[in-house]
Amino acid sequence: MDTMRMTLKDYPDAAIDANTFAAVSEPLRPLEEGEALFENIYATVDPAQSRRLRRYENYVPSFRPGDLIAGLSLGRVIQSRSPLFVEGDYWTHWSGWETHSIVRAPAEQGPLAQRADPAVAALTDYLGPLGGKGITAWIGMKLLGAVKPGDTVLISAAAGAVGGIAGQLARVYGASRIVGIAGGPDKCRHLVDTLGYDAAIDRHAGDIDVAIDRELPDGIDMYLDNVGGALQAVVMERMRRFGRFVITGTVAEYGLDVPPPGPNLFVTVRRGFSIHGYLATQYYDRFAEFRAEMHDYLASGQIKAGVDIVEGLDQAGEAMAGMLAGNNIGQRLIRIATDPTL
Amino acid sequence: MDTMRMTLKDYPDAAIDANTFAAVSEPLRPLEEGEALFENIYATVDPAQSRRLRRYENYVPSFRPGDLIAGLSLGRVIQSRSPLFVEGDYWTHWSGWETHSIVRAPAEQGPLAQRADPAVAALTDYLGPLGGKGITAWIGMKLLGAVKPGDTVLISAAAGAVGGIAGQLARVYGASRIVGIAGGPDKCRHLVDTLGYDAAIDRHAGDIDVAIDRELPDGIDMYLDNVGGALQAVVMERMRRFGRFVITGTVAEYGLDVPPPGPNLFVTVRRGFSIHGYLATQYYDRFAEFRAEMHDYLASGQIKAGVDIVEGLDQAGEAMAGMLAGNNIGQRLIRIATDPTL
Repeated sequence: MDTMRMTLKDYPDAAIDANTFAAVSEPLRPLEEGEALFENIYATVDPAQSRRLRRYENYVPSFRPGDLIAGLSLGRVIQSRSPLFVEGDYWTHWSGWETHSIVRAPAEQGPLAQRADPAVAALTDYLGPLGGKGITAWIGMKLLGAVKPGDTVLISAAAGAVGGIAGQLARVYGASRIVGIAGGPDKCRHLVDTLGYDAAIDRHAGDIDVAIDRELPDGIDMYLDNVGGALQAVVMERMRRFGRFVITGTVAEYGLDVPPPGPNLFVTVRRGFSIHGYLATQYYDRFAEFRAEMHDYLASGQIKAGVDIVEGLDQAGEAMAGMLAGNNIGQRLIRIATDPTL
Repeated sequence: MDTMRMTLKDYPDAAIDANTFAAVSEPLRPLEEGEALFENIYATVDPAQSRRLRRYENYVPSFRPGDLIAGLSLGRVIQSRSPLFVEGDYWTHWSGWETHSIVRAPAEQGPLAQRADPAVAALTDYLGPLGGKGITAWIGMKLLGAVKPGDTVLISAAAGAVGGIAGQLARVYGASRIVGIAGGPDKCRHLVDTLGYDAAIDRHAGDIDVAIDRELPDGIDMYLDNVGGALQAVVMERMRRFGRFVITGTVAEYGLDVPPPGPNLFVTVRRGFSIHGYLATQYYDRFAEFRAEMHDYLASGQIKAGVDIVEGLDQAGEAMAGMLAGNNIGQRLIRIATDPTL
């Protein structure tokens, strides 16, 4: 049997597009003891992957031409030589953009590799609110952002995979005003109508500083920065004393070979606030606590999962390019095979 | 009776020097009810004052030509029409670079205006470790830096008014390694021999990044940034996960009309640390707690006050220019009159 994989064709000189990737077919070797064969159903399409498509040094190594585009997938066990992986069970696992994966059952896969029980939550939830984006939002809003009743909260890329969950968590934690920034009227409507944001700012419509002053006239207690870029300086000038400016990533800068400078940091002194950056991997010891909390929120309907599904592994390159252009709402997934639980 | 005051002559086009200031003599008006007349003994010379000597907008308004150089002073009450101010008592009070001050006794002077008891501590201590620089160091190391046993700590401008106290506080809180950055061999010796730093880095001698790697090969848990500038990016690349990068001020940038950009902040994500800026005024509700703690440390000898005294109000301009050039060790004071307790 073969697996079909999407690989890096070559480092793009400019924007990432479908031509950045090449589809290759490879025969699967026999399973060894402790391994299982997965038929994959979904794979994630993430900004973090896009960083690894660039030639320059990074906090995780770049892919090399020919490499599988690695990431978190969800599949069904179709053959197993591991007592952990029962045939017919669903698991999220670290492999990437491929139809079939041979997976060893190691503890070091980390907490994001988890059994997915379709009786408890949709399979896609395990790659969305119960996955890396869910814990990223939770760390940002709860552990570092420490959102509490009465806070004013601003979230950038608010219709994205992290932002959509983060805004709903801010509501759970009692924020008095939650404003999201997103690109375009459809996303802005989604923020208010579906996700329960109090207001949305369309970053394509008018000056963003004016819009922030209009929507948050008394300043910002907590900002979740999903984008980086020039917006950082604009928001910092509007932080309230003892505010928390929390950075999950800087997707606006990921296409640049040389990272741009940041704001002059005397603003943190004048305005008396903190900046906190993090990766979810730095907080995996909190995963069980996160997972229990998120299961409750999904069950009660306090958090609605947002997933954005692109059909077909052969569309993965387009799915990535489109996400970098900002056309997804929620966690973008590629559907590689039919989801038998639907 | 006259008061002799040092005022701003005009905004300097380049470096601040003695010519930035003008001495003027003014007659004192009679006291009103609720006021006292002070003969001043000491006045502080502070980087924060230097920011106000510039034309550009600031977080506190600039001085205007002709204005008294305002700041914290210590004087003796020589006439009083206030029940608060007893003749012969010593007080720190907000006035500035002048021989005599008429002071109203208002609550809004804030906690730094305090009675100074020479039986408890040297008068100069009330402008040093018990004053604004003491609480600045304490907020940085205890409240925001949260220094705990085993931490590695780096402090810039370590021989300055804040840095000298901060390094000693790091020892009190159990840091395992405390390294200070200062300019020149005299200051470096002072850090190790007098203040108990484990090591000192002379910023004039060789590459500072190499020196930091040598003295702190496993990275930095807590950094107290007294200077800003290019050193910020160097230190950020060496922060440990969950580290605290705490900014008290950015004196290296105070002479610049346009603040330079800061480091790209994705480093906070990659390395998982926080940045926290503050002004002591934002934490004055903690002053009583600070004062009690600092009194104990002074009494037990755990903290040694460092004051650096320049003789004569007429030398105040030179004292400021010299401090900005980095030639002070500890809190710089001008002695305006003989200290009768010495």
